[in-house]
Amino acid sequence: MTEIDPTGAVAGWWATAVSRMEPGVIELRGRPVQDLIGTTGLSSMIWLMLRGDLPDPRQAGLLEAALVAAVDHGPQAPSIAIARMAATCGVGLNSAVASAVNTLGDSHGGAGEQCVRFLDGILEAEAAGADLPAAVERAVRQGPRYVPGFGHRFHPVDPRRDPLLGLVESAVQDGVVPGDHLRAGLAVEAYLAAKGDRPIPMNIDGATAIIYAELGFPAPLARGLFVLSRSIGILAHAWEETQQGRRNKGPIPRSILPARLP
Amino acid sequence: MTEIDPTGAVAGWWATAVSRMEPGVIELRGRPVQDLIGTTGLSSMIWLMLRGDLPDPRQAGLLEAALVAAVDHGPQAPSIAIARMAATCGVGLNSAVASAVNTLGDSHGGAGEQCVRFLDGILEAEAAGADLPAAVERAVRQGPRYVPGFGHRFHPVDPRRDPLLGLVESAVQDGVVPGDHLRAGLAVEAYLAAKGDRPIPMNIDGATAIIYAELGFPAPLARGLFVLSRSIGILAHAWEETQQGRRNKGPIPRSILPARLP
Amino acid sequence: MTEIDPTGAVAGWWATAVSRMEPGVIELRGRPVQDLIGTTGLSSMIWLMLRGDLPDPRQAGLLEAALVAAVDHGPQAPSIAIARMAATCGVGLNSAVASAVNTLGDSHGGAGEQCVRFLDGILEAEAAGADLPAAVERAVRQGPRYVPGFGHRFHPVDPRRDPLLGLVESAVQDGVVPGDHLRAGLAVEAYLAAKGDRPIPMNIDGATAIIYAELGFPAPLARGLFVLSRSIGILAHAWEETQQGRRNKGPIPRSILPARLP
Amino acid sequence: MTEIDPTGAVAGWWATAVSRMEPGVIELRGRPVQDLIGTTGLSSMIWLMLRGDLPDPRQAGLLEAALVAAVDHGPQAPSIAIARMAATCGVGLNSAVASAVNTLGDSHGGAGEQCVRFLDGILEAEAAGADLPAAVERAVRQGPRYVPGFGHRFHPVDPRRDPLLGLVESAVQDGVVPGDHLRAGLAVEAYLAAKGDRPIPMNIDGATAIIYAELGFPAPLARGLFVLSRSIGILAHAWEETQQGRRNKGPIPRSILPARLP
Repeated sequence: MTEIDPTGAVAGWWATAVSRMEPGVIELRGRPVQDLIGTTGLSSMIWLMLRGDLPDPRQAGLLEAALVAAVDHGPQAPSIAIARMAATCGVGLNSAVASAVNTLGDSHGGAGEQCVRFLDGILEAEAAGADLPAAVERAVRQGPRYVPGFGHRFHPVDPRRDPLLGLVESAVQDGVVPGDHLRAGLAVEAYLAAKGDRPIPMNIDGATAIIYAELGFPAPLARGLFVLSRSIGILAHAWEETQQGRRNKGPIPRSILPARLP
Repeated sequence: MTEIDPTGAVAGWWATAVSRMEPGVIELRGRPVQDLIGTTGLSSMIWLMLRGDLPDPRQAGLLEAALVAAVDHGPQAPSIAIARMAATCGVGLNSAVASAVNTLGDSHGGAGEQCVRFLDGILEAEAAGADLPAAVERAVRQGPRYVPGFGHRFHPVDPRRDPLLGLVESAVQDGVVPGDHLRAGLAVEAYLAAKGDRPIPMNIDGATAIIYAELGFPAPLARGLFVLSRSIGILAHAWEETQQGRRNKGPIPRSILPARLP
Repeated sequence: MTEIDPTGAVAGWWATAVSRMEPGVIELRGRPVQDLIGTTGLSSMIWLMLRGDLPDPRQAGLLEAALVAAVDHGPQAPSIAIARMAATCGVGLNSAVASAVNTLGDSHGGAGEQCVRFLDGILEAEAAGADLPAAVERAVRQGPRYVPGFGHRFHPVDPRRDPLLGLVESAVQDGVVPGDHLRAGLAVEAYLAAKGDRPIPMNIDGATAIIYAELGFPAPLARGLFVLSRSIGILAHAWEETQQGRRNKGPIPRSILPARLP
Repeated sequence: MTEIDPTGAVAGWWATAVSRMEPGVIELRGRPVQDLIGTTGLSSMIWLMLRGDLPDPRQAGLLEAALVAAVDHGPQAPSIAIARMAATCGVGLNSAVASAVNTLGDSHGGAGEQCVRFLDGILEAEAAGADLPAAVERAVRQGPRYVPGFGHRFHPVDPRRDPLLGLVESAVQDGVVPGDHLRAGLAVEAYLAAKGDRPIPMNIDGATAIIYAELGFPAPLARGLFVLSRSIGILAHAWEETQQGRRNKGPIPRSILPARLP
């Protein structure tokens, strides 16, 4: 409270538990920043900022693996193509990244969040007494046409699935995470394989959703964490593009003119 | 080359060295993604994506310290306030982060980039035969009013300076980095202290700029790396705000109406 | 089709009915741009680009009135505050506008779109045989807690309601628009007034939603048109702020530090 | 000033001359909004919000012609392609527009602003005693490689040039605008035609820059006004794309994989 804010209402309007500043003092989640520098890994820092406590090394490692796995999927992803075009338009790298990150919406960046919710629903049904296969069947039947986190338009098998699930399995065995979301996810995968003509294996969104949920992150942060992860690929592509020196890069070579719809 | 792209011109328009996708295959900078998951830290992954090779552990640690140090500076920073307001407007976390990251422009996120260029200029003058104090004096005299990376409106001493520079010094001693940008930065600091009534110590932008430059990142990536780092704080504040349940949060309490300019 | 796109698949990927370019030729919705310059008003141009035909003057006038009415609601609106802060961060006006427009999401910019859908639902129920009061009652009862387009946190009566509805009424009388959405909107307003302790009159989102729907724009374009309209206020505030010369403007005066949440 | 803001410092932090809100009251540039609705055209409203007064009809018409002329240049423009891809990613139209508008940076949206400055410089030199051809020659020689506002990669002659300049000429004849920037722009065009092997005629950025400058808008608003204008095309393309129902549209047909850079 100050002379110009005697009731503290203005300071309170921006109150936060994330950080505290005073002249010469920076505390992040109650910890002096100088205690964090050089002692704390980047994924632990992400955990700290989002949750208020520090993870143990196994938790941090699992989070890190998920973040590493999703950094990039090439310029056919709209976000990456957008970053590259934006970088040629005379804006800073910050704005190239922003235009791209902005498109990690419900379709392009939301499958992880949707998958956590989907698995949460199955586990709630199980906790309420349903057996797992029945809960899975009902969830798939009542859910959207494409089960979020399963199947891939491009990859018959997503090469990121096995190493990520392997790390979760090992973490379950060692008591690092409970294993319920893994169990539910594998049950969904088994159900989809039995039901259709061909398997619909878990994809990167499903595998990372399981990790985030096993670590206790709520569903919206599955999208939030994907944003942090994919920002790395976005920046890398934007930077590569700026080094080519193009100006105002369009989506296709300049000699090809868009066709005309009636 | 395919039937619809017989010359390869279309594939070539989006050519990239960052990643390669084929059905079942994801390579990042030439490395299969499954080899990176669980073996590679997040800061090493950032290095790999931006540069194409993997850092050694000391390099990765120095990069990580700089990224950790700059994650947040509270809601008085416009980017953080923007993230919090955006998060109450009915958009996803991706868009809240985007609106905020977008404002890490020349003033709010560009000091690191400017500081690298400033120190580069001093070192080039030195390499051309000037002695360092003379090169510093000329650079400060000809440079902008505020030397980028030095002084802070809020902190008399930035608590992040000492631990970051300590890590650089130790890396120099161990031959991890050459030490030239550190030397130039300290010379600027000494010159500013001798010249004015009060010291103008290095701030977070200066200290991280030295780290990025010592590690060989070009100037624009000082801003790019800051974007990745600050995205973490931005996400943390946006997420905290969403949990309060406010809608369309304005900048000041609702009972205070903006004054009228003539 | 060209040598590098022999099947036309690449040109077809970007096919559009909105515009056609050839060297020396620019056609917008099939009309040479030179025929539009100096003959066509801005609101007619908006109509043309979104729908493919030109409005008659009465339609264009009604659209223009709605666009004019919603240009601004001051810096307590998060979008406006964001534009002003962004403009001090060292980015171009384009990026200041972008960070702001981006926040016209479901809560901040979506009420018009939601109101069109809400009124559409009532009119569909009526078309299916319900009488209007019953359709209204059911829609309100089953709808969200706050009926989109009705009531205002700040204005007891929104001063934009009467002139906008007056223009619609006159257009209905002259056969310019059918009048169904107006009828439904007034029925909702009457129902809300009769039901509660105090009237909940239509607000700007409701009144403009009626205009857009009466003119035949589908619901999502109610948001789209609001984006165009509010961009004007956003730009005006961003520009005013840049002329003050502040750098990195935070949300509250610098001497007030955000309070600390536990 | 209120109980929680006794000094008025908080209200003053957000002071503005653009708009004033009180319960039941909305004033835009000092005019009650209800007086503007139905009486004021959209381009007059843009002028009012940016400058504080209303234009006369000829001024408003000239502004409107410039705004109409620049609404769109098809999906080869990065901003339009970005809007279309963003619209398939599961974000609102507001965010699709934002990602696109954000890229109207120095290269993609800044030529008008740069052209105003360029012509301002020539006119200042003339005012200081130089004759116009000499001032033009010096400005071109000392300026950037491509004179902003002149020449077009795609159109040998920009079909928007003649109708726009025709309107300016007529406005000069009638004393609506002074004609200095037109004079300077034509002198640049003549100089470029005489100097090279082929003419480099004025393009849309040059012609609209002349209009904005003749009407008294400062250089940065040439970009700001372009943002408003191009937002219309951006919205039209984003909306058209959403109606196709694609999800996560990449920049090229899905069967074409980006080539690999070494």
